[in-house]
Amino acid sequence: MKGAYLDHASATPVRKEVLEAIVPYFSEQYANPSNVYDIGSQVKQDAEAARANVAALIGASPEEIIFTSSGAEANNLAIKGVAFAKQKKGNHLVVSSIEHHSVLNSARFLERLDFETTFLPVDEYGFVEPARLARAIRPETILVSIIHASTEIGTIEPIFELAGICKERGIIFHTDAVASVGSTPIDVNELNIDLLSLSGASVGAPKGIGALYFRKKVRLMPLIHGGIQENGRRAGTENVAGIVGFGKAAEIAADELPHKTEQVRMLRDRLIGGIIERVPKVTRTGHPEKRLPGHASFCFEAIEGEALIFMLAQAGIYANTGSACASKALKTSPVLGAIGIRADLAQGSAVFTIDGSNTMEEIEYVLEKLPAVVARLRSFSPIWGKDIPEYEVDVCPA
Amino acid sequence: MKGAYLDHASATPVRKEVLEAIVPYFSEQYANPSNVYDIGSQVKQDAEAARANVAALIGASPEEIIFTSSGAEANNLAIKGVAFAKQKKGNHLVVSSIEHHSVLNSARFLERLDFETTFLPVDEYGFVEPARLARAIRPETILVSIIHASTEIGTIEPIFELAGICKERGIIFHTDAVASVGSTPIDVNELNIDLLSLSGASVGAPKGIGALYFRKKVRLMPLIHGGIQENGRRAGTENVAGIVGFGKAAEIAADELPHKTEQVRMLRDRLIGGIIERVPKVTRTGHPEKRLPGHASFCFEAIEGEALIFMLAQAGIYANTGSACASKALKTSPVLGAIGIRADLAQGSAVFTIDGSNTMEEIEYVLEKLPAVVARLRSFSPIWGKDIPEYEVDVCPA
Repeated sequence: MKGAYLDHASATPVRKEVLEAIVPYFSEQYANPSNVYDIGSQVKQDAEAARANVAALIGASPEEIIFTSSGAEANNLAIKGVAFAKQKKGNHLVVSSIEHHSVLNSARFLERLDFETTFLPVDEYGFVEPARLARAIRPETILVSIIHASTEIGTIEPIFELAGICKERGIIFHTDAVASVGSTPIDVNELNIDLLSLSGASVGAPKGIGALYFRKKVRLMPLIHGGIQENGRRAGTENVAGIVGFGKAAEIAADELPHKTEQVRMLRDRLIGGIIERVPKVTRTGHPEKRLPGHASFCFEAIEGEALIFMLAQAGIYANTGSACASKALKTSPVLGAIGIRADLAQGSAVFTIDGSNTMEEIEYVLEKLPAVVARLRSFSPIWGKDIPEYEVDVCPA
Repeated sequence: MKGAYLDHASATPVRKEVLEAIVPYFSEQYANPSNVYDIGSQVKQDAEAARANVAALIGASPEEIIFTSSGAEANNLAIKGVAFAKQKKGNHLVVSSIEHHSVLNSARFLERLDFETTFLPVDEYGFVEPARLARAIRPETILVSIIHASTEIGTIEPIFELAGICKERGIIFHTDAVASVGSTPIDVNELNIDLLSLSGASVGAPKGIGALYFRKKVRLMPLIHGGIQENGRRAGTENVAGIVGFGKAAEIAADELPHKTEQVRMLRDRLIGGIIERVPKVTRTGHPEKRLPGHASFCFEAIEGEALIFMLAQAGIYANTGSACASKALKTSPVLGAIGIRADLAQGSAVFTIDGSNTMEEIEYVLEKLPAVVARLRSFSPIWGKDIPEYEVDVCPA
């Protein structure tokens, strides 16, 4: 059957080379890397080589990488880790209103413990305006966290400017780059980033491994307390296979990134152009150019996003609708609310994420199938073609 | 070369059947289980089947299992999760003084946030006396955490009695059973346990997966905030291969447990008896009978544990010395301190952990090699054979 997997932001197959690299670490090289004896040291050495590869992908040093179990854990460690370590200096955080739930909910958790958070609004494209960030900063501000690019709308934030404002004022700057690393080049030093979250799954490593980059000067309270793993910054026996796989995937990503970006961008532009041309009443979300190369996002009028995803899957086409939260309950994504999408329109959100393994044939196949699927769903809709007033939908509780 | 891997508490090879079960989840069944479409639902279903197997191993229901990245994360989630959820009810915790660092350090972290912890002393075998626990409980006590069996000394605590005291008083009881699950039968209902931490690696699953059992009534604040994974109790894309592997390993462990225990115990008793017989000036630690079937632990006079482990490895024998912390710094393990082992003697701690894959031949090989290794190290020791006064060693900062 023909098909197209265009949900690489949700999950991506582990590459053959990565799988080959990790298999020996299950039943053969099984020793615990914290052990002093030879077979433990060998595993430790292999994990450290992987750390160097992950660091190199973002221009960092290996000792600035803490392995975690996911991008979400990295975000929790960054937000809570700085808050608890700098509690005596101040209690104010600034985050954008289009952060991932793991950032938003970490900030909300801290509010129970006498921290305060300013949630910065964004414009219609999802941009955080640097001047607005500058105004939000107070003497007691200890951390600013702005996502590198949203998985929902794809817009790449002006990180250099935003981080620069923090650097001038001596405030720690964190960015969630889970959707970006591997899709677009990022150098933590060029961009003045102090903390950066990334995920192995985004670059073709297995699920269950992530990392937090931290600039050496940044003090962090561990999220997972315990032993001396990760230099005392993250306890628990290391996920050795995940680490080795992340290293291999990062090595491949660094090699391929310069070549694949243009191809991926071309596929994306054909998909966006084709959908706009063939489907009536569709709104593109995020910025038209300043967006992730493989990211295309829309809201379809009078469509229920989950139904769309479900019907597309029957044609072998895999895409996503809004955030994980929005995908489980009929609630509006806070990201789409923040860029001013009407609640009823936000119900019909769809996100296509393309990577280097996709082809133009697949994109053409989507363009062939999608219009009929949308038309069919609209034929069932009680609101399609009617001029209904805006209705109320709960915002997804972040 | 002959050899014996007797460090199963640190790491254990992933079983062939487990490896076969997980390989398809890297490059073929790669979809994100949170996605609504067919290939996502299939992965979700497979992960849920694994959850049922893990639950069955400890007599729990599948909806009472939260997958984590390690036993250490499960311990952090239990301690901090209850503390933050019950903060309005009370601020007092009781833990034993022989807990794993992930419990001790979670409690110490909470002390920074106006929680108080009582660290219960233990007797010479490492037992927590139930009457002492009863006396330590206050009106503001919200959680008691007592390890099921210490990885350092192997003693199995009187969990039924300890948990019963908590049940009578309506206080939540947690046990860290990372070293026990898979080695000895545990039923959370028979033992009145409300929360129990376990690790995949302990039962032959890959590193990087753990779980927390929680009785349905227990409210927990997430440790990792974010999306709706694990019913909102633990955010981050699921480590699908880890989960599937944990399920398969739990299924095998449940089948094998009744048969292997006696064999493992026999090997252990031969090892303990043989070492006592052949090596002078060695102290057995933990209780002689009420201990994990595969666990043998000692302190060798005038020996530096790391040197012993290192020399044994040259003969292909793999064992451990004290805790992970102790294995990185010349400091005394708090567990050995708590059972009254002199600081100088505690330096020479060695732990052998046997599982169903070990043979009597391997044990005899250890008994053949160990006495000479100990004698050789003692021949280098400035204190061997001298009646030196007790000297000061820092206690490992937990």
